[in-house]
Amino acid sequence: GWVEAHVGRGTVVSRLWLEAASNRPAQPVNWTQQFVAQPQWPQAALVQEVAELAAQPGVISFAGGVPTPELYPLEALRQAAREFLATDDSAGQAVAAEWLANCPAEGLLPLRQWLSDWMSTLGVHSSPDHIVVTTGATQSLDLIARTFIEPDDVVVVEARTALGAYQRFYGARARLIGIPMDDGGMRIDALADLLRRHRPKFIYTLPTFQNPTGLTLESARRAELVRLAEEYGIPIIEDDPYSVLSYDGPPPSPLKALDERGHVIYLGTFSKVLCPGLRLGWISAPRPVAERLARLKRSTDLFTGTLSQGIALHYLRQVDWSGYLETLRTAYRLRRDAMVGALRRHGRPGLRWYAPKGGFYLWVNLPEGCPARRLLAEAARTGVAFVPGEVFCVEGNGQYAMRLNFSFADPAAIDEGIRRLAQAISHVLARQQEWADQPAATRPLV
Amino acid sequence: GWVEAHVGRGTVVSRLWLEAASNRPAQPVNWTQQFVAQPQWPQAALVQEVAELAAQPGVISFAGGVPTPELYPLEALRQAAREFLATDDSAGQAVAAEWLANCPAEGLLPLRQWLSDWMSTLGVHSSPDHIVVTTGATQSLDLIARTFIEPDDVVVVEARTALGAYQRFYGARARLIGIPMDDGGMRIDALADLLRRHRPKFIYTLPTFQNPTGLTLESARRAELVRLAEEYGIPIIEDDPYSVLSYDGPPPSPLKALDERGHVIYLGTFSKVLCPGLRLGWISAPRPVAERLARLKRSTDLFTGTLSQGIALHYLRQVDWSGYLETLRTAYRLRRDAMVGALRRHGRPGLRWYAPKGGFYLWVNLPEGCPARRLLAEAARTGVAFVPGEVFCVEGNGQYAMRLNFSFADPAAIDEGIRRLAQAISHVLARQQEWADQPAATRPLV
Repeated sequence: GWVEAHVGRGTVVSRLWLEAASNRPAQPVNWTQQFVAQPQWPQAALVQEVAELAAQPGVISFAGGVPTPELYPLEALRQAAREFLATDDSAGQAVAAEWLANCPAEGLLPLRQWLSDWMSTLGVHSSPDHIVVTTGATQSLDLIARTFIEPDDVVVVEARTALGAYQRFYGARARLIGIPMDDGGMRIDALADLLRRHRPKFIYTLPTFQNPTGLTLESARRAELVRLAEEYGIPIIEDDPYSVLSYDGPPPSPLKALDERGHVIYLGTFSKVLCPGLRLGWISAPRPVAERLARLKRSTDLFTGTLSQGIALHYLRQVDWSGYLETLRTAYRLRRDAMVGALRRHGRPGLRWYAPKGGFYLWVNLPEGCPARRLLAEAARTGVAFVPGEVFCVEGNGQYAMRLNFSFADPAAIDEGIRRLAQAISHVLARQQEWADQPAATRPLV
Repeated sequence: GWVEAHVGRGTVVSRLWLEAASNRPAQPVNWTQQFVAQPQWPQAALVQEVAELAAQPGVISFAGGVPTPELYPLEALRQAAREFLATDDSAGQAVAAEWLANCPAEGLLPLRQWLSDWMSTLGVHSSPDHIVVTTGATQSLDLIARTFIEPDDVVVVEARTALGAYQRFYGARARLIGIPMDDGGMRIDALADLLRRHRPKFIYTLPTFQNPTGLTLESARRAELVRLAEEYGIPIIEDDPYSVLSYDGPPPSPLKALDERGHVIYLGTFSKVLCPGLRLGWISAPRPVAERLARLKRSTDLFTGTLSQGIALHYLRQVDWSGYLETLRTAYRLRRDAMVGALRRHGRPGLRWYAPKGGFYLWVNLPEGCPARRLLAEAARTGVAFVPGEVFCVEGNGQYAMRLNFSFADPAAIDEGIRRLAQAISHVLARQQEWADQPAATRPLV
């Protein structure tokens, strides 16, 4: 008598059953058991610590990677929103309503057309068919990881590589191999042997004003890198958020401009030149890849928001884009120079840095006796944040290096922040002997 | 003499090597070999065919699932964009710039607060800490699939289930088990045995005005479903896009309102009540799940675009939300009634349908001799699109059913479309004998 069947209207649970059942104990969900097992990125706690420090009020942050909010073109975006959502012009209204109803997974055609035209000014000849609009480089990397990486697949990266890429590929259980770098960027001479032995799924590189090192792959090496990819039939993922932000003359052409046979997948983003909150990026890829990525994107988030795409497109069509980028270069050149100048003024013996020709970052090697983790603890006390170098190093080194961002703080804050950092270095060095004399068990953790 | 090493400045590739190397043949990338292997959803081709038909000019589409663009509040969104991006009010500008620079992965706090307040009017008591803002239900389902499903995991769904969920769980290689349904929704009496035997990762359900059937899980079964989830410690994923669109009085409370012990993960979206192009949805979940989902979201797309979040929040704060929803209900009630009326007027013997009390869909059983695939080919000739039922049926049946959407076409087009469909049914039935007489090899494929 537990269940009463009623022909034609399904089944009704009897009171008797409900009463009996309600006496059985409720079980909480054991979430850990229900969740998919995930590899724990070893640097997660350190990155979290830096993020919390950088978010504290009054802290001068060299830790982030975002453009300065003062330069966001709010008024122009507002104007673009007004035009896109125009209701007095019936044609405009029809277009907005159509775009807000539906969109191909690869993005609005006119935006892909704009991107394709824009990329031709970088020497890349593509068509809208090669472009997939994404919600930024983070999604582009996620789509790439899900398209290419199976556990234990080899992925080749620069030995110091972008945090987001490192985390994402690690999370996909790739085996990461880091190529050494020098002032000319990735050491291509170390690559051929690696490609032959490991047949990686792809080579991931950020060749221009690299995050985190600020290094740029020199032109001859670019040709050689593309040639090697062609020789071994290995795709290159070219991440290019910074090449438009060049402060000492034009940068070398992107790898994608040298890609005659379709080996290069190019990642672009508006997050560094407009604002991260727009969540707008793109991938330019050979057709089979673009189709596959669009299919995956459809099952991931259907399509990139067309309110954002529509407003961005109206903005891009009405703005003097080259003139706007020149404004950014002028502003960030000042900040780069402010940081380099401050390092010269306040620097300590043994401090060495690479002055980048563009982008957002300056890589600093710390003197002996001053590991970045210990410096971070000291810097936290004086109100400065930066990212310890080891976070970017797939080969497990980088303990005596740090990445400094100069795009967020203004020149005065940059000078003050570097002054405090230099003091913090002195403190760490002064306490070095004291540190060494202490029994290991009583030393602070960082 | 292939490589010349230069101490202190890295390695320069010699001309000799470049020349020798350039004679080696370039290899195209074998993309199929580089891509991760993926299960091919068996209904993909049919869905593609329907999408292409529905996009043809002049076709009356009952195939989609989007709200009618005529009802998009463009003017109010425009006003909200103006306020959010205000540059004359320095406080407003500071907020906009801050939001456009950065955002927690789980979404803007004031938007999560609004959502939490809104959900309390549905009987769900939560806090912003339980909410993760996503780019729509498609992303919510993707995050859920990536958080819970490993290959061969069992997932319980309604025997007729939403397309996006079916595709996504299938793509994650879940073993889907469909629970039979009747007019009271999912047959909960069939569930207990299944939970005991299979220990599924979760139960996915769309209990109110279901996509695709229009059915609503009755109140007594809701209590029983939550109780069973508690008894077996199994999470419920409650997908709730349609409950606010109720046309015959208020719907039953969401399962989440009955969830005293934290077994229910609730998915909400603005895509059906505002517009899909906003790409804005949310998940309300127990804290350990919300934290895990936010972490995954961070590595997926960093955060949901704050241009969209900011504009939506300004819109939601200024609009009379209940009044706006009432306008939608009035408009869609008319369309539901138009479709039911047209089916009564033009219907053919053997045609049976379930008249839903809300939502966007009407489920139709076709007469013997008229399978939906054959009807689709005939309907294409008369310019009507719908989705064959088998696409939603995880148990492999549904060949004599179809889903009709009534939210997109206006009442006049609905009447004309149903008239054409009824004619198409007559044609298929008339040619039934002719069909049976034909040798199998010469029959058309659909």
